[in-house]
Order: sequence, then C-alpha cells, then structure tokens
Amino acid sequence: MNLILLFDDDFTGDARVRLTGRRLEHVRGVHRAAIGDELTVGRAGGRVGRGRVTRLDAEALEMEVALDREPPAPLPLTLVLALPRPKVLNRVVASVASLGVKRLVLVNAWRVEKSYWKSPKLEGLREQLILGLEQAKDTVLPSIELRRLFRPFVEDELPSLARGTRALVAHPGAAVECPRALDEPVTLAIGPEGGFIAEEVASLERIGFTPVHLGARVLRVETAVAAIIGRIF
Amino acid sequence: MNLILLFDDDFTGDARVRLTGRRLEHVRGVHRAAIGDELTVGRAGGRVGRGRVTRLDAEALEMEVALDREPPAPLPLTLVLALPRPKVLNRVVASVASLGVKRLVLVNAWRVEKSYWKSPKLEGLREQLILGLEQAKDTVLPSIELRRLFRPFVEDELPSLARGTRALVAHPGAAVECPRALDEPVTLAIGPEGGFIAEEVASLERIGFTPVHLGARVLRVETAVAAIIGRIF
Repeated sequence: MNLILLFDDDFTGDARVRLTGRRLEHVRGVHRAAIGDELTVGRAGGRVGRGRVTRLDAEALEMEVALDREPPAPLPLTLVLALPRPKVLNRVVASVASLGVKRLVLVNAWRVEKSYWKSPKLEGLREQLILGLEQAKDTVLPSIELRRLFRPFVEDELPSLARGTRALVAHPGAAVECPRALDEPVTLAIGPEGGFIAEEVASLERIGFTPVHLGARVLRVETAVAAIIGRIF
Repeated sequence: MNLILLFDDDFTGDARVRLTGRRLEHVRGVHRAAIGDELTVGRAGGRVGRGRVTRLDAEALEMEVALDREPPAPLPLTLVLALPRPKVLNRVVASVASLGVKRLVLVNAWRVEKSYWKSPKLEGLREQLILGLEQAKDTVLPSIELRRLFRPFVEDELPSLARGTRALVAHPGAAVECPRALDEPVTLAIGPEGGFIAEEVASLERIGFTPVHLGARVLRVETAVAAIIGRIF
C-alpha cells in the first residue's frame, strides 16, 4: 500500500478522515505509523497528498489530509481481455489497474472455459482495482465491464468503443509486429491461453482491428499484458 | 506447457524419447494426447520440433521426435534483480525465463529482508526456469546466480559483467526516462519493493549505470520486469 485510497464516506470534515478495517490494520501492522507521522493518501477520483496521523489505535486511524497533486496520467488504453482463469484473475486485474488502464472489458472467447464465468472472484474485482491503485499511487478507479457473449459484443459495442483509436489484437503468428511508443489512444484485445481462434480474429479484423505479434514467445496473460503495455506506451 | 522440454536422459535413441513423471502426467491429463498425435517439443539448449506419440499409458510417454527449428532468439539482457520475497519469487523467475532473459543475478539489497535468503524456494528455481521455457516454447536454460552481498558483487563482479552493454538501473524519481526499443545488449538492475536506497544507486552509478524511471507509477516487481523488458526491446 504505497498510497491510502480515501472515499467520500471516510471524510468526517473537509480535511479530516477516519479509517477502520483493512486500511487501519495495514497502517498499524505494516507501516507501523505513529501519531504525527505523514502517510501518502489520495481521494478516489481526485488528488494525491499527505495525511498526518492524529489518532491511531485498535479502533480507528484518523488523519488530517492535504491533497495538492494530480494522480499519475491515465493510460490512453481500453483493454479488451478474454476472461482469465480464476487462479490468475485477481492478479491480472490488480496489475492492469496499477499500469494505469482505465477501461477494462473482460470478454468471453472460444477458449475461455465456461466455468470461469461462475468464479466467485468476479464479485471481488473492485477490491483488486483498489489494490492496484494503492500500489501505483493512483486514485482513478478503472471501469470493468463483463461481456459473456463474444459476437454481440464485438459486432454491436466494440466498433463505437474503438472509434478514433488505434485498434490492435495481439495474435501469435500475425504478419505485423506490435508497434512501439504510440502517442495516440489504443484499443487492445488480448485473447485467452491458446489465443483467439481464427474466426474471432476475423471478426475483430472486420471492425478494423489489426492483428499484431510480439515475437515467437508465448507469454502468460499477466506477463503479456505488462510487456505489451510497456512496449506500446 | 506449450512445449515439452527434453533432456539428454530422456533420449533412448537418436530420435526417440521416453518420459515419465510430471511431463507424462501433463500430457495425459491436460493435453489428453493419443497415439499418433504430434506435440511440440524442444531439446534443452537445442532445437525445437515435433514429437509423434508412439506410446502413452500410466507408465510412460514415448515419442519419435524431429527437431528442425531454432528456438526463439534470446534477449540480449542481463537482469540484476534484488531478491524478491518468497511469495512472488517462483512467478518472477518463470516470467523472466519466458521473456527470454538468459542471465539472471538475484542480489541482496538494503530493503531485501534477510529471511528471504532462507526461503526453500531458492532450491527450486531451476524448475521455475523450465516452466518458463515450456510456456514460451524456448529451450535455452537461463543461468541464475545468487549474490548475498551487494557491495562486493557491484564493485568486483558487476563491472566486467556489464562491460560493453548499456547499463541501466530502474529507479523511481530518476531524472532520465527509461529508453525504448534498444538494439544493443543491456544490463538492467531492478531494486526490491521500496527501491534501492540512495547509496546503492550511487554505487551502481559509480560503475557506469544510468538511473532511469518509468513514470510516476510504482509497480510490483513481476509487473515492472515485464513492462520494462517490453519497453526496452
């Protein structure tokens, strides 16, 4: 927790907050803060600054906060990601949030196992986004959309979502190498383990997506997402 | 397992292999292969090709193999990484191998907790390298070196190790932005959670390392490694 994310309900005055639960435990157990210490804080959707501890005990953490800086710039990227398997879902979502993605669409695909859509982890994604923001010292919560039907999403929604952006689909074996250091908004689709099937790639191409490859290596989704984002921006 | 890595001991003839244990279980349980099927294989340190299944039962998997392609090109990168905490160590090492790093030095730093060096996971790193290669369809095992003393390593070993390469240390708050799309060998040092301390960065600068930053975001080590490698190469 490199930044403590504050929500409206935490504020007891214009510049005073009172925290309990996970954040209290973390500041007591990991930061081991004391009264008078300053901690990095940020208001959800707003600015970043410092909180001076005025109370810290088993019951509550209270701080006086001064928010004077903008959070890091968002990544101009909409990420369309085939739903990862439950074992890695939390990690991928937190990682995506830490990298500065502000719009994430988790979509079905032929090689996504049906059972993945029943994972209880799908209920806890907001918490993972918060962990990602706290890691990266960001305050702006990404949106997450779940789309359980690939074709209607790609045909009816994705064209307007991708309008005015560079639209790319990561696809091993594509003819074109993934571009670097783009200075424009991007919509990026990344398939499941084993990749999108040919018909899915063709659907994406029909609405203007360019298949791009990253070389001969097949990467796990969490590695691939970070490597592609590092390369594109 | 996108490629089955074969070792000298697996060969029962010039082009015949016999596998048991983990690889047998994986091919039976996950690939669900049958006799006559072809699987992607590669010889450790050597070429990649196909293996045709000639026997598959509870006891052994036997294949006739034809190795006709080179593995993916290695990354011209030596990675010097502060020892990650045990919880993420396996994942980081497998990910680094999948990205094509061929020399990894795990080094101590001020903010590396002493207990990390006692983790039993340090005994199992070769297995993680193999998993990373199998993921990325690579065959060339990276070397891993462990260096429990920062200063002697940096002063006595690192200068010759980094000679003739672009030497960079990832450091939040550095004046210079991390370069992109380099076409030369690189030695890259990445600190622990919380970063290298100022004295450590100064030691690295004295032997020619340039501190570079990746923006305002603080990333977890596994995300940072992939994002930096995606950016640099």
